[in-house]
Formats: sequence, structure tokens, C-alpha cells
Amino acid sequence: MIELGPNRYGKAAIRLVKVVRDGPRHTVRDLTVDIVLEGDFAAAHTEGDNAHVVATDTMKNTVHAFASEHLTGSIERFGHVLARHFLDFEQVARATVAIAEHRWVRMPTASGAADDAFLRSGDFTRTTRIQASADGDVVESGIRDLVVMKTAGSAFAGFPRDRYTTLPETEDRLMATRLTAVWRYGDTGGVDFDAAFDSIGEALLDAFAEHHSPSVQASAWIMGRAVLDLRPEVEEVRFSMPNLHHWLVDLSPFGQANRNEVFTPTTEPHGLIEATVRRGG
Amino acid sequence: MIELGPNRYGKAAIRLVKVVRDGPRHTVRDLTVDIVLEGDFAAAHTEGDNAHVVATDTMKNTVHAFASEHLTGSIERFGHVLARHFLDFEQVARATVAIAEHRWVRMPTASGAADDAFLRSGDFTRTTRIQASADGDVVESGIRDLVVMKTAGSAFAGFPRDRYTTLPETEDRLMATRLTAVWRYGDTGGVDFDAAFDSIGEALLDAFAEHHSPSVQASAWIMGRAVLDLRPEVEEVRFSMPNLHHWLVDLSPFGQANRNEVFTPTTEPHGLIEATVRRGG
Amino acid sequence: MIELGPNRYGKAAIRLVKVVRDGPRHTVRDLTVDIVLEGDFAAAHTEGDNAHVVATDTMKNTVHAFASEHLTGSIERFGHVLARHFLDFEQVARATVAIAEHRWVRMPTASGAADDAFLRSGDFTRTTRIQASADGDVVESGIRDLVVMKTAGSAFAGFPRDRYTTLPETEDRLMATRLTAVWRYGDTGGVDFDAAFDSIGEALLDAFAEHHSPSVQASAWIMGRAVLDLRPEVEEVRFSMPNLHHWLVDLSPFGQANRNEVFTPTTEPHGLIEATVRRGG
Amino acid sequence: MIELGPNRYGKAAIRLVKVVRDGPRHTVRDLTVDIVLEGDFAAAHTEGDNAHVVATDTMKNTVHAFASEHLTGSIERFGHVLARHFLDFEQVARATVAIAEHRWVRMPTASGAADDAFLRSGDFTRTTRIQASADGDVVESGIRDLVVMKTAGSAFAGFPRDRYTTLPETEDRLMATRLTAVWRYGDTGGVDFDAAFDSIGEALLDAFAEHHSPSVQASAWIMGRAVLDLRPEVEEVRFSMPNLHHWLVDLSPFGQANRNEVFTPTTEPHGLIEATVRRGG
Repeated sequence: MIELGPNRYGKAAIRLVKVVRDGPRHTVRDLTVDIVLEGDFAAAHTEGDNAHVVATDTMKNTVHAFASEHLTGSIERFGHVLARHFLDFEQVARATVAIAEHRWVRMPTASGAADDAFLRSGDFTRTTRIQASADGDVVESGIRDLVVMKTAGSAFAGFPRDRYTTLPETEDRLMATRLTAVWRYGDTGGVDFDAAFDSIGEALLDAFAEHHSPSVQASAWIMGRAVLDLRPEVEEVRFSMPNLHHWLVDLSPFGQANRNEVFTPTTEPHGLIEATVRRGG
Repeated sequence: MIELGPNRYGKAAIRLVKVVRDGPRHTVRDLTVDIVLEGDFAAAHTEGDNAHVVATDTMKNTVHAFASEHLTGSIERFGHVLARHFLDFEQVARATVAIAEHRWVRMPTASGAADDAFLRSGDFTRTTRIQASADGDVVESGIRDLVVMKTAGSAFAGFPRDRYTTLPETEDRLMATRLTAVWRYGDTGGVDFDAAFDSIGEALLDAFAEHHSPSVQASAWIMGRAVLDLRPEVEEVRFSMPNLHHWLVDLSPFGQANRNEVFTPTTEPHGLIEATVRRGG
Repeated sequence: MIELGPNRYGKAAIRLVKVVRDGPRHTVRDLTVDIVLEGDFAAAHTEGDNAHVVATDTMKNTVHAFASEHLTGSIERFGHVLARHFLDFEQVARATVAIAEHRWVRMPTASGAADDAFLRSGDFTRTTRIQASADGDVVESGIRDLVVMKTAGSAFAGFPRDRYTTLPETEDRLMATRLTAVWRYGDTGGVDFDAAFDSIGEALLDAFAEHHSPSVQASAWIMGRAVLDLRPEVEEVRFSMPNLHHWLVDLSPFGQANRNEVFTPTTEPHGLIEATVRRGG
Repeated sequence: MIELGPNRYGKAAIRLVKVVRDGPRHTVRDLTVDIVLEGDFAAAHTEGDNAHVVATDTMKNTVHAFASEHLTGSIERFGHVLARHFLDFEQVARATVAIAEHRWVRMPTASGAADDAFLRSGDFTRTTRIQASADGDVVESGIRDLVVMKTAGSAFAGFPRDRYTTLPETEDRLMATRLTAVWRYGDTGGVDFDAAFDSIGEALLDAFAEHHSPSVQASAWIMGRAVLDLRPEVEEVRFSMPNLHHWLVDLSPFGQANRNEVFTPTTEPHGLIEATVRRGG
């Protein structure tokens, strides 16, 4: 009467740095890779039979071994090759590869951008997730932990008030979020994933900077539309946007006005808005 | 042709400490609460119309205001009252309340357990999540971040070997995990959630300590069965069990044997096993 | 005209787990070790000459290799042996070994405390630091991250008020801190470090629970005196006590009183009190 | 026979965001401020007398209140004004103000850098610490968490070998560090702190990129000299340089060579090199 339900396993946080040494001008790739397998693994749980259990240590080795030959372009292409490799095991019904790429930029120096010295940029992380099965690949790519702020053009008013509501309405607030966006590609045949990432990133920044925001919800919708208008190969965009509150400090006890100038940021609690914008019909 | 897909919003990480002062012997409750609403919120996204948007600040205020009267028993009961309150808003189709309770234990002193001094126990966190809708409540409770280790009775052998496999088989390894378990209750009518939590916690520890583990997968299955055998009101248990690797240190370069004694724990990468054990039929 | 000033180097965060297998009842030791050397290392900096530079990788290996034979008692004794080993290098004037011991407790089960299953206790971490030089050893031991709270017997009043002061006086506040205490031993000849740790820990808890606190500063003094009164081998105690604020929530907008019952804990900003209590004369 | 030794207290992690709204082109300042006082505070500890204890809540209010008028230039100038304010309390012998400035850069858009939208840059944090006393101010400024990597020009060889040494010598390793540097100014009278920060930052990057590194120790010396050669107002530079190891992956089990190309970064353990470079004489 007791049965095994959904289950999966894999190796998380496989770290990998590749230095491409094509002549004196090096390139650095810095990835964190997760591998997850689903399939015919019931016997491992219920019988203690590991005959189907590809060791997670083997997954790590495979990622390292594939880096030399296959990490030559986008993380989407590398993820695809890895996912297909694991799908080749007979017992695997779905192989999921998630990759985060950490950015190193050439070190700026008095004599120009360095050939072999780099600086890690903490502005954001590029991500992808490839789910490979007999039905083909589902490719979702994204941007993570992009912290952005609007100091004008952000309001929050017209919301319902009940006995627990104390928040004043405002037509001019400071809005900040740690943006995570994930977009799902439809047909991935001819997609240049690096170019797509760059143009989607630019579209997100443009939309964020230029729109008037009546709420974080509206901002997500506007940014999602911008991406879908721009890139026909994208089917949907999902946003996770924590509202990083910046509260106006009450300076009146000190005899000072606060002309929307001095704020205290807080981390707990925070609003959290999640929304999907997609092609309909 | 572009439409709004699934969306939700709320307030995360609402912190709350309640001191119950029934006479000189105090009690401390320390919660982190998340509120998430789903429903008729499309206009907020697409029209910038906030008429339906209960402010997340109001959610925070509500949690604080309800604490005095309603936080008198289990976090499941407190979560239920909060979820039903938010579901009363006409535009809300589903209200989800997630609560983590941080444990403070009475300070042990030479004259016994203190009345009004406490020590925060970091052993684990108790959790619950109530999803309230017109269909009733779904209650899932759990334990988070319980770090446990077996120094005997753990093996990993019989797994497939390919060209990328270097892991040796072992009949005696050190197995450690940071256990997160979530169990879903069926009918919650007469459940004593505090008693259930205590007995499920004990069942998990007993099963972990006493079973022979051929793999983390098998351990999850065995622990899940133990819970379902014990508590008829539980319908399923979900486990997330990262494999916190402890690698045997090679001491042979120093002329020493390592009789399964000296290990180095690592955090990256780590195995991750996820499994559901449920009632079938 | 440019010279090298104070400098030191070493290996930090060396992780080590030792399982003592004296029969079926195992014991787990879980340490994080830092090694730091000072001495005649100028040529490494100014000449690029590594002839004196014991590799930090060698330090790690040494810690692992010494674990089997020398980690048989207190972390203070293990640290002493390690520090003396590194001091034997001619170029080393001072070797410092810092050790944190993470606590694993026997898993409680229906049939008693387990022999070979353990639960990691997150209540606090025991620490020590041995500084070895030609002048002998300086041994400082301590407790880290012990989170404690008083729900009665804590006040803060009588402080000066200026134009920037808004804090009300209170005779009954909730006081919480993440206590770190370090005590320096004088003569370490006959000290039983494990027994000393246990009794000092108990003295700190007793004093915390039982005193009336007019301020965190006074609490530090009272706890320090308790340790020095108890253990003649301790010369001084240093405290670092962040004030983990719990603010009384204003429930009056909701028509509720708050009888010192509902608080919201915050992490930023926090008070920080540091004090030394020592033998005088 | 028991006495109070060194002691100090204050408020840590005071968060402050200021939006300067001089016309449509805004500027964002984002600071974390710590205030620490030393002086005549013994009675607070030993007598429970708070008459001298400036409340840490007052410190927080003061920072917020001063932001409007006094945060108009460098963090060093703002810190100076704050430190002098607290030194004016009769009981204060030394006031220390530490400030970290988090960087927001104008959001790049298709129509140029935005006026009122910003992106948080995670590349590094600028810091300062002002210690004000009757003897004047000691000003130390710095850069924190600048993660940098050299893919050429880094070696580590010629180090001593003992029975615990297994590390091979290498003439071509990957060297990475999370650089923290602090420089102490001598006479601060005419210093343009913003210009100094910029030019010191550039000097550190130039030196890092262009030097040949026989060890992290030598790199610290070379970068310190570069700063002292450039800025006569700097008296000393202190470096903290964890060695973020990137280990060459052994691909030989898979029949592959690894031509210094595929690495796995690790976080535990890590080397840690600390050094001061200063003007001598």
C-alpha cells in the first residue's frame, strides 16, 4: 500500500573553470553545473539495488571530461551535449542540466584590457537549464541576481485598505529588486544563444529604466512584453522580483524634512512578486 | 497575442517573536512567516490597477496583529487562521501561508531549567505550509536542516561503471545529510500537529539510526515507510537529502594507514537525492 | 624607503572529521583548523624567494596526518602539538593554530543513544587558539555563536538624551545576543581543558539566566566575573555581544494593546558590545 | 582583584541610501556605517550606570540625520564629520566610524546612461575607517572583495619539502584572490579622497595584471610598492589575500590530457596571505 512517488537525483554545484589559451589572449569560463536524472530508479529505493544508479561522482567526472572538447560556445550548447550524454543511459527518461555562468571580465589597465588578467564581475549571473527527454529538449535560459533600482517613475497607490493597512499611498517611491528572469525557448534550432542573451538583457534594462511603474506587478508585465516583442524564439518569460524595500526615514524628530532623499534599506520582510508573461492563443 | 500566465505575490520573511507570559514561566515562539496570494490580480499587471492588490505591508501587519490572539497552539493552527483570513478577500482564489518555527529551549542552569532565559537551538527548524482555497486546506508540515551522520551501516556498491567512473565501491562509508522532509496530511480534522511532529521526528531519527543503508535513495525510502506506518493521517512524505560527502583522506604519502578514520568533508559538489514515499492504490 | 611591515600567512578552513572506532560505540570529532605562521619570510615578499615558505598545502597535509595519532583529547592539546610542529621550522618565530570544534551528539532513539548515528548540534561552537613561540604557548579558548535570550530581568534606562535620541527608557525589555566569549589561560600545565570548557559554559549560562541586566555592558561584566571567580587558571575573558534587537510591535493602529508580548527581531543595524574582564593588580 | 579591561561599544550595520536629486539626473549613495565609541564607560559595566552610555539607537538616528546635510562628498569626509560629532561627548576618548560604500552605476540603455535607473555593481566595495581622538584623525581607506585572477605569469616553486609535502612545483598556475587592501593616509589635509581611491584602484589593477608572480606574498609586495610609489600621502598599505585555489583536474583516467585548461575551484581550505607594505626609515 506504500509506493515510491516522484523521485530524482544527481550532483549539484559541480564547479568548473576553463581557461581557453588560443594564443596570448586568454578567455575564462567559470561554471557551476547541476546534473539531475529521472527514470527507472525505483529498485535503488525499494530494493537497495544500485545497478541503475549512475554514481553522482561519475556525473562530476563527466562534466570535467567534457569541458575540454565541448565547452566551446554557449552554456546552452554545453548543457545540451551533457544532457544528451546522460539520456543515453537506458534507465534515464529525463536528464536535466542546469548551468550558471559566473562572469569574469578582462582587467582594465593603463595599457588596455589585459590578455591574461581578469576581474570577477558580480553584477549578475547567466543561467540555463536543459531538460532532455525522448520528446526533445526544453531550453530555459535566464539572468539571476540582477539588482536594479528606479529613483523616479515608481508609484504604489489605489490599493485596498482594511483595518490592518497602514501603508500610505505614494506617487514617488524608490523601487529596487533583485531580478531573476527565465525565458523558455520554443524551437531552438537556429538560435544564437549568446546573442539572444545579450539582446534580452538589454531589453530588460531598457524597459526597466524607461517605463513608469505603478507596481512591481506592472513592471514584470512590461518587461516580459519587451522580451516577447523582441525575440520570436522566446515562448514565455517568468519573473521573480523581490521588492527590496527602501523606507523613507522619518527625520521630523530631529527637526528635519526628508524630501524623498534619505532611505533605509531593509531585507526582512520583503515583498515577492512572481509572474509569467507568455504568448497566448 | 501576449498574455499573463501564472502569477502570485506576497510577503516573505515576516519575522515574529511572541513571549507568552503566563506567570513567571515564560514561553518563546519565534516564527518566520511567508504569505502568498493567487487569484484575480491580472489588472495589476496589465492595467496598472491596484484595486485588488492587498498590500504586502498589510500582510505583515496582519501577521503581527493576529499573533496575540491566534498564536496559541501549533504553527499549523496559526497558519490556518491566517490563510482563511486572506482567502476571505473576494479576489483571492488561493492563500498560502508558510511558517518556519525556530527553536528556543529553556536555559539549563544549576537550579534547573530557567523560567525566563532561553537558548536558541540550531539543530533543526520545524516548518508548515497551508494552502487554503475553496476546496479546503492542504497542510504540509516538515523538518528542515536536520544534519545527521551514520558512521556505520552505510555502503555504496553495485553501481554501473563507465569510462568516467573512478569512485571505488565501498561497504563501509560515512554517510551524512542535511535532511529536509515534508509530509502532507490527509484529513486534518482531529490531528494534534504538535504530537504528530514529535512522533514523526522520533520515527525519522530511529529509522536513520537503525537501518542499513545501501544508498541515500534506500534511506529515504526506509524513513518514508517508517513515517507512513506510524501515522495514518499522513498521505505522503517528500525528502530532499543532499549527500554531504566525507572523503577518506589518503595518508599513504605520509606512510600512514587510514583505517576509515580520517575524513575531509566537502561542500561542493554534493549529491542530491529527492524522493516521495506515499500511500498507493 | 619602502619596507615590509608585519606579515603572516597560512592555511584557513582546513576541514577534518575523525571517527574514533573503539569498539561498536563510535565518537565523531569535527574540526575546522587554521594555521598561521610568522617569522623570517621577508625574502618571499621582496625577492620572490620561496626557500622559507612552508607550502600551505603542506600545512593541510600535516593537520590530516597528525589527526590519527594526536587528536585523542582536547582541541587545546591537538593545537599545541600542531603549533609546536610548525615552530620547529627554523624560520618560524610564531605559529598560531586556531581550531573550532563542531558538535555532533549521539542520536536519541527509542532504544537509547545511538552508537554510530549522530546529529549535528547547532547550539554553539567550541574554539581555541594556540600561539606558540620561544616564550611558550598562549592558549585562548572560547565559545562562539551561543544565541541566548532573557525575557525578564533586562532593562535599559538612565542613558543620556540629545536631539537625536528617540529611544524610550524601558525597565522590561527582551534582551538577546549571539555570545562569543574567549578566555585566556595563565599557566596551562595541569589544566583539564574539557572540564574547564564545560564548567565555564555552565557558569556563563547560570550567570546569564540569573542576573538582572541594566545593559549588555553590565551583563558582560557579570558573566566575566563569574568565570574568573570559578576558574583560577583563567586570566581574562573577552566578550563580543551583538545586541540582537527585538522591537515591540506597535499594534495600536489595529486597536490592540501589546503587553510586552509581540516583537519583531531585526538584524540590521545591531548594537555591538565588546569588553574584557580580567584579573587586576 | 577583578577589573574591567579594554572595552568599546557601538552600532554596526547602519544602512543608509541617499538619493541626490539635483535636477532630473539623480545620484545614489548606498552606505553601511558602523559607529564605535571608547572612553569613560566603566560605570556602565561595573555599576550598571548608563549615564554616560550614548544609546546605540541614537547613533543610528545621528547617521540618518547627518546624511542629508553632510553626505555630499567622499565617505571619508562624511565619516570625519560623524566621528567628530561623537568625539564631542565628554566621555568619549575615541570615536571610530567605519563606512562601506556599495556601488550603483547608471543603467546603460539604448538611449544612453539612465538618469534615474541604476544597477548595483558587485565588483568590489569601497571602505574607510576614521578613528578620531584628541590626537587627531587616523584615516584608513580601502577596497574590499575585489576578486581577480591571473591566467599567466604566476608560479610557485622553490619551497621547502618535508615528509608532509605533496604539492608539485609549478611555473604556470592559475592564481586568484579576493583582494582586500587598506591604506593609511598620513596628512589628510589636502587629500582628494575620491581621486585617490580611483588612482589607487587603477594602480592595484595595473600591478596585478602586469607583474610576474612567484607567490602571493610577492604579489602583495609588488602591489603595495605600486601604491606607495604613486601616492605620497599614503603611509602604508595592508593586504589580505586569500588564495582561491583552482586545482588542475586530473583527466588522465578518461584518457585525456589537461593542458593547463580545466580547473576546479575550491573554497575550503584556502591559503591566506596578509602583509603590510610601508614607508621605512
